[in-house]
Amino acid sequence: MKKSHQMLVTTLMEAAIEKAKQGMANGQSPFGCAISINGKIIAVSHNSVVRDTDITAHAEINAIRQACKQIDNIFLSDAIVASTCEPCPMCMAALHWARVKEVYYGASISDAEQAGFNELQLPAADIVKQGKSSVILISGYMEKECTELFKTWTMSAQKQAY
Amino acid sequence: MKKSHQMLVTTLMEAAIEKAKQGMANGQSPFGCAISINGKIIAVSHNSVVRDTDITAHAEINAIRQACKQIDNIFLSDAIVASTCEPCPMCMAALHWARVKEVYYGASISDAEQAGFNELQLPAADIVKQGKSSVILISGYMEKECTELFKTWTMSAQKQAY
Repeated sequence: MKKSHQMLVTTLMEAAIEKAKQGMANGQSPFGCAISINGKIIAVSHNSVVRDTDITAHAEINAIRQACKQIDNIFLSDAIVASTCEPCPMCMAALHWARVKEVYYGASISDAEQAGFNELQLPAADIVKQGKSSVILISGYMEKECTELFKTWTMSAQKQAY
Repeated sequence: MKKSHQMLVTTLMEAAIEKAKQGMANGQSPFGCAISINGKIIAVSHNSVVRDTDITAHAEINAIRQACKQIDNIFLSDAIVASTCEPCPMCMAALHWARVKEVYYGASISDAEQAGFNELQLPAADIVKQGKSSVILISGYMEKECTELFKTWTMSAQKQAY
C-alpha cells in the first residue's frame, strides 16, 4: 500500500474508533465506521441500534446513509471505508449496493459474536466472493485497537447485545 | 398452511404489492414489504432509494425500521413478513437481526437482476442456511402478481436501476 493511502486509511480508522468510543459513552454498542472520497472524510458514524430503536442502525449503514446525503448520490464510487469490525452480511451487502471501492476492517465477526451479538455465520469475504462483488475487502487493519473496543464495552454496565 | 394463516399472508402480500405500486407511481423501484405481529399489520413500505437518496432504503429495511418504531422494540419477534421480491443479502440479514419468524416472498432476485439491478449472486436461502439463521423463508408466494411489478416498472419512463 502507498504511504499516502495508508495514512488516509489510518486516519479513517482512527475516526471510526473515536466515534465508536463516543457511542459507547452514550450506551451504544462498540462499532464505528468512516467513509472518504477523494481523500476527504464525508461520513463518520457509530452504531445507534439502541438509541434509535432501529435494528438496522449499524455503524456502516448509518455511515452509508450519511455519505449518500452528503454527496447527494446513491453511489459512493471510489469510496474508501474503514470499519472497526468486519461488516455483517447486511452491512457488506449495503457497501456493495453503494459501490464503494475498498473496505478496511479491524476486529472480526467472531469478536462481536463472543461479545454476545447474534451474528450470522457468514464472513464478509464470503459475501464478496460468493456474491461476485467487486468491492475490495481488507481484514485486520488496526485490529488490536478495534478488538479493544469490545473489551471496554464488555465491562460496561450499560451494555446491551442483540 | 392453516387457512387463517394463509389469509393473513395473502393480505400482507397484497398490502406489499399495493405499496410497491404506490412507490412506482412516484418514481420509485418495484419493491414492497409488509410486516405483521399477532395478526395485525404494523408496517408497510416501498423501496425509497431514489426519493431519499439512500442506497440502503430497500422496502424491507424501510419496513423493519417502521416496525421497530411502531412497537418500540428492536426485536420483531413472531413477525410474519411478506416481500414482493426475494430479500437481497442486506435485507435478509436485517430480517435475521430483527428476529422475525417467517418471510414470504414472490419474485426472485434473478427477476430483479433481469430488470437491471446490481444484485449480489447470493440467494436469500443461502444467507439463512449458511448463516445458520432461524428465520423461516418461503419462496414464490403470489409470484405472478409480484413479477408483474417488474414488467410494469420496465415500461416506465422514470425507471432508475442501481
